[in-house]
Amino acid sequence: MPQDSAPSLLRDTSPARLTEPSAEPARAAYDEAFDWLDTACAERRDAGLVRTLRPRPADSPLLDLAGNDYLGLARHLEVTRGAAQAAHRWGAGATGSRLVTGSTELHALLETELAAFCGFEAALVLSSGYAANLAAVTALTAPGALIVSDAGNHASLIDGCRLSRARTQVVPHADPEAVRAALTGHDGRALAVTDSVFSVDGDAAPLPALAEVCRTRGAGLLVDDAHGLGVLGEGGRGALWAAGLAGDGDVVATMTLSKSLGSQGGVVLGPARVIEHLVNTARSFIFDTGLAPAAAGGALAALRLLRREPQRATRAVRIAQGLHERLTAAGLTAVRPDAAVVSVRAPSPEAALAWAADCRAAGLAVGCFRPPSVPDGISRLRLTARADLTAAQLDRAVGTIVATAPTG
Amino acid sequence: MPQDSAPSLLRDTSPARLTEPSAEPARAAYDEAFDWLDTACAERRDAGLVRTLRPRPADSPLLDLAGNDYLGLARHLEVTRGAAQAAHRWGAGATGSRLVTGSTELHALLETELAAFCGFEAALVLSSGYAANLAAVTALTAPGALIVSDAGNHASLIDGCRLSRARTQVVPHADPEAVRAALTGHDGRALAVTDSVFSVDGDAAPLPALAEVCRTRGAGLLVDDAHGLGVLGEGGRGALWAAGLAGDGDVVATMTLSKSLGSQGGVVLGPARVIEHLVNTARSFIFDTGLAPAAAGGALAALRLLRREPQRATRAVRIAQGLHERLTAAGLTAVRPDAAVVSVRAPSPEAALAWAADCRAAGLAVGCFRPPSVPDGISRLRLTARADLTAAQLDRAVGTIVATAPTG
Ligand SMILES: Cc1ncc(COP(=O)(O)O)c(C=O)c1O
Ligand SMILES: Cc1ncc(COP(=O)(O)O)c(C=O)c1O
Repeated sequence: MPQDSAPSLLRDTSPARLTEPSAEPARAAYDEAFDWLDTACAERRDAGLVRTLRPRPADSPLLDLAGNDYLGLARHLEVTRGAAQAAHRWGAGATGSRLVTGSTELHALLETELAAFCGFEAALVLSSGYAANLAAVTALTAPGALIVSDAGNHASLIDGCRLSRARTQVVPHADPEAVRAALTGHDGRALAVTDSVFSVDGDAAPLPALAEVCRTRGAGLLVDDAHGLGVLGEGGRGALWAAGLAGDGDVVATMTLSKSLGSQGGVVLGPARVIEHLVNTARSFIFDTGLAPAAAGGALAALRLLRREPQRATRAVRIAQGLHERLTAAGLTAVRPDAAVVSVRAPSPEAALAWAADCRAAGLAVGCFRPPSVPDGISRLRLTARADLTAAQLDRAVGTIVATAPTG
Repeated sequence: MPQDSAPSLLRDTSPARLTEPSAEPARAAYDEAFDWLDTACAERRDAGLVRTLRPRPADSPLLDLAGNDYLGLARHLEVTRGAAQAAHRWGAGATGSRLVTGSTELHALLETELAAFCGFEAALVLSSGYAANLAAVTALTAPGALIVSDAGNHASLIDGCRLSRARTQVVPHADPEAVRAALTGHDGRALAVTDSVFSVDGDAAPLPALAEVCRTRGAGLLVDDAHGLGVLGEGGRGALWAAGLAGDGDVVATMTLSKSLGSQGGVVLGPARVIEHLVNTARSFIFDTGLAPAAAGGALAALRLLRREPQRATRAVRIAQGLHERLTAAGLTAVRPDAAVVSVRAPSPEAALAWAADCRAAGLAVGCFRPPSVPDGISRLRLTARADLTAAQLDRAVGTIVATAPTG
């Protein structure tokens, strides 16, 4: 039986290691094809925009205000156990596309419970939130259709628009009148697309007004509730539940299982005919291996825990609001949070990077968003409120952020 | 401690269930936005092309010749244990983008071992093979560049081409001279893109000839080795290793962790500067949550098992060849397999569907590929050879397929 504490994956005891072919992969004589990468690399370096991976140990001493594990469930014993049990029972992988061998009863159960919890007729689970957005945008549009897309939308929605071959009109951020103007005069299928809570600044979309506009124009509304699930709406049922729009016939939601549910995967929720259409046409569903059972099992355990402990959702929002109050009281510029993300402005990419590094040196992990990852070119620290942060941890976090803030 | 046999995820003992808000999601008055779906649905029905999900139980009695678990590792105890241990130690999810909180030492270790095993300088793990292909194609091209893409390429490579905004020229299947012609006269960056083993027919790309053509034109070569890893090359090191191209400076490979390695996830392998470029620019890497630790742990355990038992790779190929011989000897038309996939022709989509259903009724799961999932419009059964199939299972599979074959 596997033991919680067995760290054996980090030790390789395989005898075959000694016979590993020595593949010292010498740069061969055919380098020129990718020589242009050196220029791109130098440009990044000169602009101070180099990104590097920093693998963390299992027992990192850092206080984490950077991850999207809003409810503190990724390492909750019930959730990790749900993941581990699913791997043992169903296998480490789904072994094929959901349409071939990749659908298990576990996937079906997760879909049923997600749909019931969030108030939708049907649900479809994919391998990531990214894949869910590609699937929903492409399957609900077509050449000739119009997509009206908020300027602050997540990269995966934007990539969905690009893949759809529909005409995409980008409208100013959180502006229902701009959506109305874009829809006016278009004759034929149309879809308005928006994040519910914008990933960088943590502000909420005006969902009721957007739905109203879409309805006067006969357009569908697709909402990416990646940062709303588990945080907004009664007991964390999401931003569409909060807006009274969940389950409506013209509304489709996408969500990720990788944030509040502490796992991996994505889901599309909507009317049954929408889900049936995705099963039949969405390329990122059809041509992708089903979500690993462990991820489905982890997400299902997290969902059940959230249903049992709905106060986790409220607590995440309250902590974010408290963070915002204390940081602005200390003179910093932060966006008033509508969910669990608190965005704090930095004067420049370099200052943001130095600020995040100083926080890290003081034991605090914060997100640092710089161009080109931000649509508006403004660099910021991105803090996430976890429902399980203690008062002492919050004091420490606020103290560190304020003490390391750039001056001027 | 979690127990292997505890099927508790399928029983919901949550007391909160009783208080679930009754969200009977009535089709509201706003249905018209998606009314066009009913037409699309009727058209599918009339064409006999409706796809439905068929969730399998954990202990399915079917003999599986449909999945891509070529080495029979998805349910191998070492692999499921690797997945479960990783969930316990690292959490059910990665909690963020690999660039923020989503990189663990487990991801780094998996990357190091994959690169060493397959003979490349560096590797980058993503949440799926689909995401890996989107990342590699988009990051290695740009507007103005030329992509030369095989007509039989996988959907995820095609979607990568669409996202890249480069000019894509589709060339006839497995035709290096067509690639040469497409590259001739193009001045600037170019990338030839191909599956190593084509997913539908299981035939291999002419990699040495393709590399030769690319080299005379200064083009890069991107090879999706999803169906080669674990099957081709010494001990399953992949098609590029087999072709003597692994580690060359102008060659990049993508692979999935969801087939031979029995898990989930994708990987890009290539020169270090290519990997660094992906970390900095690939949207499906940057804006996606890191691969779940359980999937990384499962893949790592499978990789180590394969390294210790290299004969699994050979056995998968030998079984595929045996299947092909026996089916053609019985009068069926099948493509000579270059790896572990055996494709058998069916006279029509309806015949293919009936054939697969008859096999299923006789206890055998086979893949059934029909339009629009096949580039050439030809329907077929798709059989996969698993290294762990016994002689008796093979006899049964061949007997069933032949006995249920469409006549005429
Ligand atoms: C708004 C939004 N949508 C979609 C995604 C993608 O979800 P996933 O990471 O599960 O692919 C993310 C973050 O990763 C996100 O912030
Ligand atoms: C050739 C090929 N490339 C890529 C993929 C995508 O890999 P994944 O399922 O891990 O997303 C698949 C199958 O799913 C495939 O057959």
